[in-house]
Amino acid sequence: MHKITLLIHCADQPNIIASVTSFMASNDGNIVYIDQHVDREQNIFFMRLECEFASSSFSLEKFKHLFNSELAEKFQLKWKIYSAERKPKMALFVSKYDHCLYDILGRYNSGELFLEIPFILSNHLDLKPIADSFNIPFYHVPVTKAMKHEAEQEQLNLLESHNIDFIVLARYMQIVSETLIDKYPNKIINIHHSFLPAFVGAKPYHSAYKRGVKIIGSTSHYITEELDAGPIIEQDVAHVSHTFSIKDLIAKGRDLEKIVLSNAIKLHANRKVMVYNNKTIIFS
Amino acid sequence: MHKITLLIHCADQPNIIASVTSFMASNDGNIVYIDQHVDREQNIFFMRLECEFASSSFSLEKFKHLFNSELAEKFQLKWKIYSAERKPKMALFVSKYDHCLYDILGRYNSGELFLEIPFILSNHLDLKPIADSFNIPFYHVPVTKAMKHEAEQEQLNLLESHNIDFIVLARYMQIVSETLIDKYPNKIINIHHSFLPAFVGAKPYHSAYKRGVKIIGSTSHYITEELDAGPIIEQDVAHVSHTFSIKDLIAKGRDLEKIVLSNAIKLHANRKVMVYNNKTIIFS
Amino acid sequence: MHKITLLIHCADQPNIIASVTSFMASNDGNIVYIDQHVDREQNIFFMRLECEFASSSFSLEKFKHLFNSELAEKFQLKWKIYSAERKPKMALFVSKYDHCLYDILGRYNSGELFLEIPFILSNHLDLKPIADSFNIPFYHVPVTKAMKHEAEQEQLNLLESHNIDFIVLARYMQIVSETLIDKYPNKIINIHHSFLPAFVGAKPYHSAYKRGVKIIGSTSHYITEELDAGPIIEQDVAHVSHTFSIKDLIAKGRDLEKIVLSNAIKLHANRKVMVYNNKTIIFS
Amino acid sequence: MHKITLLIHCADQPNIIASVTSFMASNDGNIVYIDQHVDREQNIFFMRLECEFASSSFSLEKFKHLFNSELAEKFQLKWKIYSAERKPKMALFVSKYDHCLYDILGRYNSGELFLEIPFILSNHLDLKPIADSFNIPFYHVPVTKAMKHEAEQEQLNLLESHNIDFIVLARYMQIVSETLIDKYPNKIINIHHSFLPAFVGAKPYHSAYKRGVKIIGSTSHYITEELDAGPIIEQDVAHVSHTFSIKDLIAKGRDLEKIVLSNAIKLHANRKVMVYNNKTIIFS
Repeated sequence: MHKITLLIHCADQPNIIASVTSFMASNDGNIVYIDQHVDREQNIFFMRLECEFASSSFSLEKFKHLFNSELAEKFQLKWKIYSAERKPKMALFVSKYDHCLYDILGRYNSGELFLEIPFILSNHLDLKPIADSFNIPFYHVPVTKAMKHEAEQEQLNLLESHNIDFIVLARYMQIVSETLIDKYPNKIINIHHSFLPAFVGAKPYHSAYKRGVKIIGSTSHYITEELDAGPIIEQDVAHVSHTFSIKDLIAKGRDLEKIVLSNAIKLHANRKVMVYNNKTIIFS
Repeated sequence: MHKITLLIHCADQPNIIASVTSFMASNDGNIVYIDQHVDREQNIFFMRLECEFASSSFSLEKFKHLFNSELAEKFQLKWKIYSAERKPKMALFVSKYDHCLYDILGRYNSGELFLEIPFILSNHLDLKPIADSFNIPFYHVPVTKAMKHEAEQEQLNLLESHNIDFIVLARYMQIVSETLIDKYPNKIINIHHSFLPAFVGAKPYHSAYKRGVKIIGSTSHYITEELDAGPIIEQDVAHVSHTFSIKDLIAKGRDLEKIVLSNAIKLHANRKVMVYNNKTIIFS
Repeated sequence: MHKITLLIHCADQPNIIASVTSFMASNDGNIVYIDQHVDREQNIFFMRLECEFASSSFSLEKFKHLFNSELAEKFQLKWKIYSAERKPKMALFVSKYDHCLYDILGRYNSGELFLEIPFILSNHLDLKPIADSFNIPFYHVPVTKAMKHEAEQEQLNLLESHNIDFIVLARYMQIVSETLIDKYPNKIINIHHSFLPAFVGAKPYHSAYKRGVKIIGSTSHYITEELDAGPIIEQDVAHVSHTFSIKDLIAKGRDLEKIVLSNAIKLHANRKVMVYNNKTIIFS
Repeated sequence: MHKITLLIHCADQPNIIASVTSFMASNDGNIVYIDQHVDREQNIFFMRLECEFASSSFSLEKFKHLFNSELAEKFQLKWKIYSAERKPKMALFVSKYDHCLYDILGRYNSGELFLEIPFILSNHLDLKPIADSFNIPFYHVPVTKAMKHEAEQEQLNLLESHNIDFIVLARYMQIVSETLIDKYPNKIINIHHSFLPAFVGAKPYHSAYKRGVKIIGSTSHYITEELDAGPIIEQDVAHVSHTFSIKDLIAKGRDLEKIVLSNAIKLHANRKVMVYNNKTIIFS
């Protein structure tokens, strides 16, 4: 049994759903999941579909080729087909905070995450013992002003040599380079410790304290060149009060950050996220 | 343009999605929404589909006939097809509490609800002025032990003569009769003022107070013969503390009750709810 | 039995709590509620206290005088003493949206709110029937560019002649004048339909849609001269998804707006809010 | 500077607040926090107070003695006085699930928790490596039917020899003995993986799935002899849908369990919880 996940988007047009489902049927595929969304403002159609092929002679490459020639060209589809057999490879970038790292590795260990973590990279050595205790390779790549370019090159080498599919910045306290963003578009997941678009930038809990908000939040988003302005994957919030000091806000925020980031990772790894026009479609 | 909503369920089996979507296409229908769910425990397939037919010669009756003979029999589908042109008719049963009534009628007035309210029925006269101010017919049907059967008969007559599709008990403080439940299976929506299955029965806020819970809830469900045990449509909760008296819990609960009930009404009226084995599937 | 509520703030200093509570005891008062907060950043002490006086000869004026001379001057307290017998008078300003109005009036009718509503004021006539059905005087004060000053004067006259204590803008679609803000500092409550400080200004749901947020919010705050920047009283949020159109966001937002605004009204009317340095302390 | 936390409860009576605060002042104490609650149903007064004593000659024992003779007897107070210098000692009982353990130890490491963990005890060896990686002693105390009494004795010995103040069952999959409950009344914190009182007992996620609830919850409570019926400290919930399998509910529930349990631990360790009549008062 071979199982694939198909993601497509295209201009909205009649018969697109029926055409795709018929194509699957005519290729002996059995659709086990289908969901779609139409962006009525921009007239764009999005679909996520899971399909099983029982035949032992099924070839993913042949199927992709056929899909492209018979369907994608006709409807001018943008598409991606993933095999359910291949777990995506995720690189973890961290600095000194450990709460997101523990949360991710705990889930990883328990089998909750459909992914592989070939390595953890950090600009500091503080979290190496945690990586060690989970038996995951740890690379120390310091980032200094003088060595910025070398650091970037080292990061790129590591990502390429490990065939990394996506990167997670688990409270990584460095701005990632444009080169990296260009190489991994909508594939670098960040956790920002505020309810975006409120409190963009550094020290959001300090700003939240100053503004006297009654709710704080956390936002996971893809990194784009504009700071904290990339497509939002997941958000959550918690109620706070005037009794919360900045330190209390930070502590409460950690709970949000780790849950929100882990949820975003799961959605991405399970190929449930599509990005269009700086927004996400999150399939169920 | 004619638009329909199709709800189906059947034993899970290969090619069901492709077959239905192809059938729509071959009848010149354009699918604008599709969602499905498979209950893996019981091996049941559920689908909700919206389809548009541009042809002016489209006949709903003919289409239903065709669907039944060509598709439903083959896959042993249970199905319902609704025309998007026909708003469902909802009867509102109330007693003395007005918060749910105001909430529903405010939304009704603003055009938020896709339904008609032919009448409001109550076993008391207290809320008649509200019905009057919204220009909705109000029937006073007192329920006494001696007159129980007559009251039930009067209810049934009103429901039938107004072609009511579903009934909403907006804090209606009477047990509805088995006859009514049998005539309107999964079509009588109740709001229970607790987080079911906690605190079944009368006075749930008193029980919540006594147990010292830190969260209270509200549950909207279809009425079945077993008290407060019908399929759950929608639930929500609010945090409370030891400072809440029973009166405070009741006040906070009213906010939950009205929002939860109105959400359930919207889901039902938009044909987004399917019921199977005493549970609901809620399509997006 | 006479009951008072005391609110004080002052520079944090030793013995302040013991001094105030002893003063109450020595004047035959029995403290039935006490709560305090210290803002450690600014070193300010806040307290809310409820005290009962059984003596039939108790005089509120005499007590205030004594409190001021014996305690307030010594500790340089800023203080307010309210009699629990006097309900605050609230003016309701509305325009065309009715959801907040219905919610407030429904609670008012049911006795949930400790306040009086001497009148409803609007720049439009649309909601007059609702005011009528609740038997509350309705004043139509149109605001045009040419008549702005006259409208403001009419508002002030109405507020003064009815001894209004605080004003609620229940989706009132006009900027209130500086004169009004100066006359009612931290006494004009607004509901802003976003999670402030995100989406300040007009059309926040459109902005939320464009940014692709996964949570929308609503904020009740006191009006200050800077737009949407006054002290926040209450906030709440709801989860949304890519399937929500702007219209859906607006509908979901209405549920937040009405609950958040009504909660803020209750807090203010029960004298549970203190404002300092553009932030609120909300006592339990 | 010596700082104490005082918890008292007694029959509600006049002058209790003023008397306690005056006593503190007359002993050169400066009150930095005070909060109180009156249970109006049972007429019980509860108070939590933090007080600082600047004098270098302050003696905790003398103060307790004085408090008891001068105040406690007069008002028939039940009271406890804790020194802020002494961190409570917490024993962690675990079995095979690691999510709560990681969450607690991560916070412990980061300094978020005001407590000491002298040891971790488990009836299995699975989690020993985690205890080792955090450098916390780990005791393996298997519980078999035949060895139940010996196991209990070993637990008691460990608890006593380490001067344990309270015990946390972090998904410890054994019923603790009556002897233990009697020795540590309201000092054994459990995490139950449902929204109590719904789904008492084993396999609550299975029951939640079967009932088709739309929200799942988690409850932290003190252990009493009746199963899952002890005083509730903290609860939280998460929205779920028909698409959640039992496995999905369990995964989502883990996030709730760990946050709810850690919050309960913090409340208890900071002496913010009082128990009366099987309910908790949680001070802010």
